[in-house]
Amino acid sequence: MSKTHKIAIVGGDGTGPEVVAEGVKVLKAAGERGNISYEFVEFPLGGENYMKTGDLLTQETLDSLKTMDAIYLGAIGHPDVKPGILEKGILLDLRFSLDQYINLRPVKLYEGVDTPLKDKGPEDIDFVVVRENTEGLYAGAGGVLKKGTLDEVAVQESINTRKGAERCIRYAFEYCQKRNNKKGKKVTLCGKTNVLTFAFDLWERVFYEVAKEYPDIEADYAHVDATCMWMVKNPEWFDVIVTDNMFGDIITDLGAMIQGGMGIAAGGNINPEGVSMFEPIGGSAPKYTGMGIINPIAAIGAGQIMLDTLGETEAASWIEQGIIKVLRDDLKDLAAGKMGFSTSEVGDLIADFV
Amino acid sequence: MSKTHKIAIVGGDGTGPEVVAEGVKVLKAAGERGNISYEFVEFPLGGENYMKTGDLLTQETLDSLKTMDAIYLGAIGHPDVKPGILEKGILLDLRFSLDQYINLRPVKLYEGVDTPLKDKGPEDIDFVVVRENTEGLYAGAGGVLKKGTLDEVAVQESINTRKGAERCIRYAFEYCQKRNNKKGKKVTLCGKTNVLTFAFDLWERVFYEVAKEYPDIEADYAHVDATCMWMVKNPEWFDVIVTDNMFGDIITDLGAMIQGGMGIAAGGNINPEGVSMFEPIGGSAPKYTGMGIINPIAAIGAGQIMLDTLGETEAASWIEQGIIKVLRDDLKDLAAGKMGFSTSEVGDLIADFV
Ligand SMILES: CC(C)[C@H](C(=O)O)[C@@H](O)C(=O)O
Ligand SMILES: CC(C)[C@H](C(=O)O)[C@@H](O)C(=O)O
Repeated sequence: MSKTHKIAIVGGDGTGPEVVAEGVKVLKAAGERGNISYEFVEFPLGGENYMKTGDLLTQETLDSLKTMDAIYLGAIGHPDVKPGILEKGILLDLRFSLDQYINLRPVKLYEGVDTPLKDKGPEDIDFVVVRENTEGLYAGAGGVLKKGTLDEVAVQESINTRKGAERCIRYAFEYCQKRNNKKGKKVTLCGKTNVLTFAFDLWERVFYEVAKEYPDIEADYAHVDATCMWMVKNPEWFDVIVTDNMFGDIITDLGAMIQGGMGIAAGGNINPEGVSMFEPIGGSAPKYTGMGIINPIAAIGAGQIMLDTLGETEAASWIEQGIIKVLRDDLKDLAAGKMGFSTSEVGDLIADFV
Repeated sequence: MSKTHKIAIVGGDGTGPEVVAEGVKVLKAAGERGNISYEFVEFPLGGENYMKTGDLLTQETLDSLKTMDAIYLGAIGHPDVKPGILEKGILLDLRFSLDQYINLRPVKLYEGVDTPLKDKGPEDIDFVVVRENTEGLYAGAGGVLKKGTLDEVAVQESINTRKGAERCIRYAFEYCQKRNNKKGKKVTLCGKTNVLTFAFDLWERVFYEVAKEYPDIEADYAHVDATCMWMVKNPEWFDVIVTDNMFGDIITDLGAMIQGGMGIAAGGNINPEGVSMFEPIGGSAPKYTGMGIINPIAAIGAGQIMLDTLGETEAASWIEQGIIKVLRDDLKDLAAGKMGFSTSEVGDLIADFV
C-alpha cells in the first residue's frame, strides 16, 4: 500500500458539491485499481458558509489546510454576496497564503467535444498555459486620489519580482520537457514588451536566460493581443504558454472556451513544494443546484490533474482515458448542451471505466 | 462645394504605402461623387524614415500634423528596428500628443468573409469596441528596482483618471445612441472589478453614473476574461463594448480575428475635438512589400471610418457599400488566403463601385 493522500474537499457553493462528489467517486475508483488510499476531509468554505458564519478564510481553516496534501475545490460564488468578496477573501487568499504560484491550465480538445472554432480538431487544440498566480496586477497594490470628485485618479499596480517570474518560467520549461508534445517542444512567453516596458522587460530577460538551460526547447514570444488571435486562428502553434497573472486570466478563459467550455475545463493552483488546489473552471451555477444536470467532467479532470501533480501519474492517466472514452462514446449531444445523462451517471460511467 | 479636408498621408513602412494608395483612390472616387474635396499632404514617418534620419516624431512634424483635419496611416514597423521604439516613439506618441482618447474598432463580419468561428454569420458578428486610448497601463508609468539582480522588482502602473474614463464612456454611449443596432442598444463595460479594485471601481462608478443619462440604452458589465469567451462563443451578445486601454488592445485584436483578420479590420484613434488618425489593423508585412498581393480592404475601411468621423457620413456609406459588394461578389477565395485580384485591382473595384 502506497502513501495515503490527505485531500481537503471544498465543495463550495451551488453545483460545486455535486460535481466534486462525482470527482471523489472517480478518485476512489482510481484508488482501488491503483492501490492508492486517501483521507478526505471536508471544509465548509464558500459563500453559503460566509452567509451563515460571516467567515471567509479563517486562520484556523488555513492552518488545517496547510496540513493537507492537496485541496479539491468545487466552486465558490453566491448570488447574494457582492462580487469581489469571495474571490478576494477566499480564492485569491488561498492562492497567496499557500503560495500557489502556478496556475496550470491544460487546453485540450477531446474527441466528441464541440469547439466554437471552425476546422479545428483534437490534433490542433492541445497546449498548456502556465500562468503566474501570486503577483502582477493581482497584488492588490494601488490607490485612489480624490475619490468621488471630478479629479479622481485611480492607480493599479502590477508588481513583478525576478523570483516570481523565474520560478514560473522555470516551471513552464520543466513542464514542457516532461510533456507529451507531439509537435516539438516549445515555450511561448505571452507578454506586451512594447508597452509594458518595465514588467515585461523583466519577464523577457528572465525568460531567455532560463531558456538557455533548455536548448532542446524552442523559446518563442508573442504579444498578448497576438496570442489571443492565434488561439482562435492557429491554436496548433502553441505547446506551452507562460504568462503573467492578468494575461493568464484572460487567455486561460479563452482557452477554456475553445476546448469546449466550462463543463470541460479544469486547472490547478500549484505550489510544487506545498499544498496545491485543483478546480473545475466553471462557476457555482446557482440556478442548476441540485438538479443533477451539470457536467462533472471538468471536476473529474481537476481530480486527474491533482493525481498527476501528487505523483500518481498512472492513476491520473486512467482517469484521462475514462474522460476520453465517455466524451467520445457516451456524451454524444454535448454540443447541443445536452449530456443525455445525469451528473452522477456521468460520474458512474467514468468511475466504471477506471 | 463643401469644405476641403486636409488629410495627412502617412504611408509608413512595408506594404503601408501600397494599401494607403488604394484607400486614397477610393476616397477620391467618393469625393467626386459627393463633391468632397481633399488636400493630401504626405508625411515620411515610420521605420524607414527613422533608419534614414534618426527621427521618430519630431516637434516640427507634430506641429504640422496639428494643422490637418485627419491622419490616414498605412503601417509602421520595420524589421531592423528594435520592437518598442517605433510603437512608443511614433504610434503611441501620436495618440498621446494629439490626445486621441478613443480607439474605435468596429467588429463586423461582412458577407463573403470567412470567420474562424463555427456557425456564426454576419448577423452574429456586428459590434463596436470603444477603447480608452491615452491612459491605463499605456501611461508608461512604473519603475524597476535592483535591475539585473535576483532581487529585482519591476512595477508597471495603470493610471486611470475620472476625466479619462468619463469621456470614453460617454463617447461609447453617444456612439451606441447613433449606431444602427439591429438588436437593441447596449453598452457593455469590460473590466475586472473583482481584482483590479482601484482601477475598475472608478470605471464602474463612472459607467453607471453616465448610463443613467441614457435610459434607453442597456448598461451591462462583463469581466475581461468572460468577454473573450463570449466574443468567441456568443459574439451576437455585444453591441458596444467600452473598456480600458490594455483590455481594449486585447479584445480588439480578438475582434479583428473573428471578423476575418488583418486584411479586413480597421480602426480610428479619435480625438473628437482634434486631429484623429485612421489605420488598417495589420502590420507592415515587410516580406510582401511591392508585390501587390496585400488586401487593401482594411485600409479602405479605415478611409471609410475617417470620412464618417469627419462628418461625411453619406460618402462613408458609399465606401462601405463598395466594400460589402466587392467582398461578397468578387473576392471569392479570400477564405483560402487568395484575393484573386491584385492590391490595386481591389482598389479599382471599390473605387469604380463608389
Ligand atoms: C475568480 C477570479 C478572481 C479568478 C481570477 O481572476 O483569477 C478566476 O477568473 C480565475 O481565472 O481563476
Ligand atoms: C503597436 C501597439 C503599440 C498597439 C497597441 O498596443 O496599442 C497595437 O497593438 C494596437 O492595438 O494599435
